[in-house]
Amino acid sequence: MAPLDEEEILTAVAAQNNRLPSTVLIAPGDDMALLELPSRRLLSAVDQVVVGVHVLATTPLELIARKAVARNISDVAAMGGLPVALLACATLPRGMSQESAAELLDSVRRWGEDFGSPLIGGDTTIHADASAPLVLSITVLATTRADGVVLTRSGAQVGDQLIISGPLGGSFGEDGLGRHLTFTPRVPEAQELIDALGSNVHALIDLSDGLGVDCTRMMRASSQSCGTLLQAHLIAEQIPCNCGVTLRGALADGEDYELLAAIGSNAAAPAGFSVIGRVVARPVGDTRPTLVLIGDECEDASQCGWTHGSA
Amino acid sequence: MAPLDEEEILTAVAAQNNRLPSTVLIAPGDDMALLELPSRRLLSAVDQVVVGVHVLATTPLELIARKAVARNISDVAAMGGLPVALLACATLPRGMSQESAAELLDSVRRWGEDFGSPLIGGDTTIHADASAPLVLSITVLATTRADGVVLTRSGAQVGDQLIISGPLGGSFGEDGLGRHLTFTPRVPEAQELIDALGSNVHALIDLSDGLGVDCTRMMRASSQSCGTLLQAHLIAEQIPCNCGVTLRGALADGEDYELLAAIGSNAAAPAGFSVIGRVVARPVGDTRPTLVLIGDECEDASQCGWTHGSA
Repeated sequence: MAPLDEEEILTAVAAQNNRLPSTVLIAPGDDMALLELPSRRLLSAVDQVVVGVHVLATTPLELIARKAVARNISDVAAMGGLPVALLACATLPRGMSQESAAELLDSVRRWGEDFGSPLIGGDTTIHADASAPLVLSITVLATTRADGVVLTRSGAQVGDQLIISGPLGGSFGEDGLGRHLTFTPRVPEAQELIDALGSNVHALIDLSDGLGVDCTRMMRASSQSCGTLLQAHLIAEQIPCNCGVTLRGALADGEDYELLAAIGSNAAAPAGFSVIGRVVARPVGDTRPTLVLIGDECEDASQCGWTHGSA
Repeated sequence: MAPLDEEEILTAVAAQNNRLPSTVLIAPGDDMALLELPSRRLLSAVDQVVVGVHVLATTPLELIARKAVARNISDVAAMGGLPVALLACATLPRGMSQESAAELLDSVRRWGEDFGSPLIGGDTTIHADASAPLVLSITVLATTRADGVVLTRSGAQVGDQLIISGPLGGSFGEDGLGRHLTFTPRVPEAQELIDALGSNVHALIDLSDGLGVDCTRMMRASSQSCGTLLQAHLIAEQIPCNCGVTLRGALADGEDYELLAAIGSNAAAPAGFSVIGRVVARPVGDTRPTLVLIGDECEDASQCGWTHGSA
């Protein structure tokens, strides 16, 4: 097993970058990369995958890389943006071989390319602690559509329909594997939605933590934005569930990376999207941003999902 | 001690962002931030600080944040760029309090502001492992000068003078404290250098790992670029050392974050910079990119510094 050499890993991965687009004016290897963007509008975000938290230690490195890339690209989809480039920052376990580290970063590079985001920079460090886990953080850079449309989570209005791009639940399998490692970010679906509905798309978010909490985030941000307290009414029987998943799973499992959009009351949901509810004005005294209607009953779904509290 | 709540930390820090410039069109809190850049040319890089590797566990959080921000801003200086914004990704120890996590991220925000780079996005995750250390990675976004000049490490030429922006060595104190936690990135100095010398500045790099290895990086990248094997001749008595530092310390200690530039043979080094050597064509058969001349003797300094091998 070759010992880890941080610099050699990056050099080796950068050497694979023979398909970098001509908009990368200074490629990986200098102090910073230089990009020529299609416009002056830049979208950016960072997100991480930590072994033991987001994936099990037994997860193949290629799938860890894929998840780290894909969840960032999913954020691009959620803004109606178009991916441009990635930067990767890896903190490597002491016991990791040079080959494994190169596999991890080369997987980031290849998945980035697959999702339209070449890897243009990075940093690797080896943990000092013998047992400290792999941390892989990815920064994604994206651009806005040529028409300048950008979607936020804060544009939902009273009367809007809520639609989603696919079935929910059961993403994180019993064995730690499952769709959370293999999902495809909904960048084309977001673009098709905006192409079809234009300004009738009012708000957009990707479902990373669970329909309940992510819908709550949209209601809270939109309430603040429009000055009216909003409430989502999700209709249980209209929520598409993955095979073998209960309603609770669809609401709370998280890691679906489907899109949730609020669209105008009269707009027709494009092919591939399902209407799952609507946005109403929240009754005075009601503190619940998200309800699920099950027949004649209604339940609070505002906390359904992963709320990032400490376990 | 309040338990850690990942989302609350970010919300609390984002709420402090009341001085965000008007070019931040979508502020922290959505899936991505949206920036209006001064031009379509974007510089980007990512770098991390890992407790146990780059700082001791006893280092105050504010100084960990400062180092993580400052070493990224130093990369901006090294390209002749101008900082625009930061994104922060923190992997937090399980035992960290909400207050400490907020202090860390708020320190990132404040140091970013001080160095002209508002914090526009981030992610926090709590380690699953009980003893895993704090990892703080920072992505820096920057723009190029209005005249479009960008400097790389690969433009040095035979005959160039080598200059540095300040004294070297002893940055990492015996107690783990020292200048590596308190240095000021040389962004204004880089700008003044380019203002003064224009196209006579051929190559620029920041000294993060030690004069020897960083100078070697410049010689290697420049050799590849110009097609001639280059060799740096550093003159021992001309290398400014910090108080109490030996020549070896100045060459090898690293973490100086001063600038090393290659400038034209007839250019006058601006105030604040010292000429420390020159670039020659490497003799056939000589494999040493960096030599230090001590009186009539010469020594190989190519490996002097932190070479990122596994310890």
